[in-house]
Amino acid sequence: MSDSPQAPGVVDLLGVLAYAELTGFLRMAEDATRFAPTLTDRAALSDLAATEYAHFRLLSQWLESLGVDPEAAMEPFVTALDDWHTQTQPSDWLEALVKAYAGNGIALDFYREAARHLDSATKNLVDEAVADEGRSEFAVERVRAAIEADPKVSGRLALWARRLVGEALSQGQRVAAARPSLAQMLVDAHGEDLAEISRMFARLTEAHGKRMSALGLTPGP
Amino acid sequence: MSDSPQAPGVVDLLGVLAYAELTGFLRMAEDATRFAPTLTDRAALSDLAATEYAHFRLLSQWLESLGVDPEAAMEPFVTALDDWHTQTQPSDWLEALVKAYAGNGIALDFYREAARHLDSATKNLVDEAVADEGRSEFAVERVRAAIEADPKVSGRLALWARRLVGEALSQGQRVAAARPSLAQMLVDAHGEDLAEISRMFARLTEAHGKRMSALGLTPGP
Repeated sequence: MSDSPQAPGVVDLLGVLAYAELTGFLRMAEDATRFAPTLTDRAALSDLAATEYAHFRLLSQWLESLGVDPEAAMEPFVTALDDWHTQTQPSDWLEALVKAYAGNGIALDFYREAARHLDSATKNLVDEAVADEGRSEFAVERVRAAIEADPKVSGRLALWARRLVGEALSQGQRVAAARPSLAQMLVDAHGEDLAEISRMFARLTEAHGKRMSALGLTPGP
Repeated sequence: MSDSPQAPGVVDLLGVLAYAELTGFLRMAEDATRFAPTLTDRAALSDLAATEYAHFRLLSQWLESLGVDPEAAMEPFVTALDDWHTQTQPSDWLEALVKAYAGNGIALDFYREAARHLDSATKNLVDEAVADEGRSEFAVERVRAAIEADPKVSGRLALWARRLVGEALSQGQRVAAARPSLAQMLVDAHGEDLAEISRMFARLTEAHGKRMSALGLTPGP
């Protein structure tokens, strides 16, 4: 089942993803400047950041092709996403890597959820974003190596990862409440009630947990 | 006249340009986050930043194809370029735009100077960077509009532009002194003495002055 590309829910979905990519790009660039221990690391995080910018450009062009001003489509989501970034400022390179990997993963899961509700043209755009997933693998290698060198960091980073997803869920619930057409679209496609939103968040949380285990982060007590 | 692509001067040239693009990308992204007054402005400066990253990637791949580690090639220039950015932190959106436009212009002039000394394959890479020049035009529009709205800002921004180029020259002279093979290469190609370096800086300064006039910045007293 798919919604018309001009439906308010679709515009909201493209808008929230566009601002997530734009601000993700900018924050990641800041983290690369501030925390990367080597130029190679700086370039690797920059590469991930530049990919986010490429996704932003695709989403923004797509909005324009629908006759929608990208700025207007992004505006309703600025506060929630800026607040998430403010509440999840990394304090070192490893936290920046976990954030990049986790944030990227949450965004990709969200793209996948979203893809179910979009017409096939918009779906291609989403597929393109998903295809770039491998670019964040360098973060996995770096974090695993750091844990191997000093197993103590695992607990600290696991708490950090939990905070990242906790803050994301709280902002996500705020967005779902403030944008009924977006929430409605996600719900309608499943033909279920509003509890489906919570189940979607549960799926995202579970996927996040799996990624964090892959990083070598053992759940805290 | 062209030098062999593995000559130390060529590697230095690719290295300094690579780090200039990488750090330019990151600093511009930071300025976009901090100062852009609208999402459209933020996206426009991000677009310029992403272009810098694309140039970095080309330069970095070129170094790798020469069998040179990009990190090693960039390392000698990190301090000079980081110092330049530290000494030229914009304090508002207009200063960020003037810096983006001026910095981009200086880099492009330097690419053009460099292109004379490179073999044709490397020259193509330089041409690609030069071809992206138009992307910074939005900065010209924004700054001109701001001066039209409030002519007083022109003097302040003219002083700022002078500081940008002054600090660039001082770092440039430091680099030229520390990297004799780079300086030698630039000099050899003209078949002239070391004073040619100063003349090259004079050409860069003059080109900078013309761009600043195009921005509507009248020279201060």
